[in-house]
Amino acid sequence: MSPMDQALAEARAAAARNEVPVGAVVLGPGGQVLARAGNRTEADADASAHAEMLALREAARRLGTPRLIGCDLVVTLEPCPMCAAALVHFRIRRLVFGAYDPKGGGVEHGPRIFDAPGCLHRPEVVGGVQEAECGALLQVFFQKLRASNSIEIISIKGLSDHGSL
Amino acid sequence: MSPMDQALAEARAAAARNEVPVGAVVLGPGGQVLARAGNRTEADADASAHAEMLALREAARRLGTPRLIGCDLVVTLEPCPMCAAALVHFRIRRLVFGAYDPKGGGVEHGPRIFDAPGCLHRPEVVGGVQEAECGALLQVFFQKLRASNSIEIISIKGLSDHGSL
Repeated sequence: MSPMDQALAEARAAAARNEVPVGAVVLGPGGQVLARAGNRTEADADASAHAEMLALREAARRLGTPRLIGCDLVVTLEPCPMCAAALVHFRIRRLVFGAYDPKGGGVEHGPRIFDAPGCLHRPEVVGGVQEAECGALLQVFFQKLRASNSIEIISIKGLSDHGSL
Repeated sequence: MSPMDQALAEARAAAARNEVPVGAVVLGPGGQVLARAGNRTEADADASAHAEMLALREAARRLGTPRLIGCDLVVTLEPCPMCAAALVHFRIRRLVFGAYDPKGGGVEHGPRIFDAPGCLHRPEVVGGVQEAECGALLQVFFQKLRASNSIEIISIKGLSDHGSL
């Protein structure tokens, strides 16, 4: 299973527990999987528990170092500004993401963290990998939510905020 | 002890364990202290273990909710872009910080997260509280480090990156 397929599996598992379906995988310098995670903001009562943050922290824990030199992150959705800035702190070598997030993304949209003044490290960025599949997961999730919930909540939150619903 | 004095105590405790001296406190809607933390990037082998992130997560864990509605964060240094964006996700009401961080700050400097396109929530911001005291802690820490370490490391990292030294 490719890294993005593994990230998609994490995203599907997140959807199954009513979390916004985003999944992430951290690969070590040799391409081995160091960590994988899906969103857990509800499960962990933690608005920062995005898939990327959880996978980055788990990978660093496994390596026993605060930085992930030579490691890559693969994630189904363009990271938000918080996660993009975390990639800088962790010194991630390459970011591969699936769907673009015009509302809440922080790499190609919004504050464009890697291009902002003072950014200390810029990972290589590859966007749009298996974009349709990654985006469809989110679309289906929010369509179901819209059908069962008030539209007001969705319009306040937007697709971008991986947080609680 | 005022919230900023408590944050300063956390910063001093961080310095004592050779972490960049930044401390943070989360206050509940009634002003009660919900959580306090200092930087732990080295201790936890986690480049995202900034004082703010740890205090926010601990406060949310205590309340059992992913968001900290009506809560305030008090921190000795202007938050970096990651922590500033986390404040948005946690819906922090008011951010109070001590020293400004022209190199690594993400509120009044760099990507100015709260003013960036698409930002869903803007906390009230009060900067410069006990600024001299907060800044002096960092200056002394980096002066000592410079004396005992290579200057090259400092110049690469800058004051801004609360990460490993």
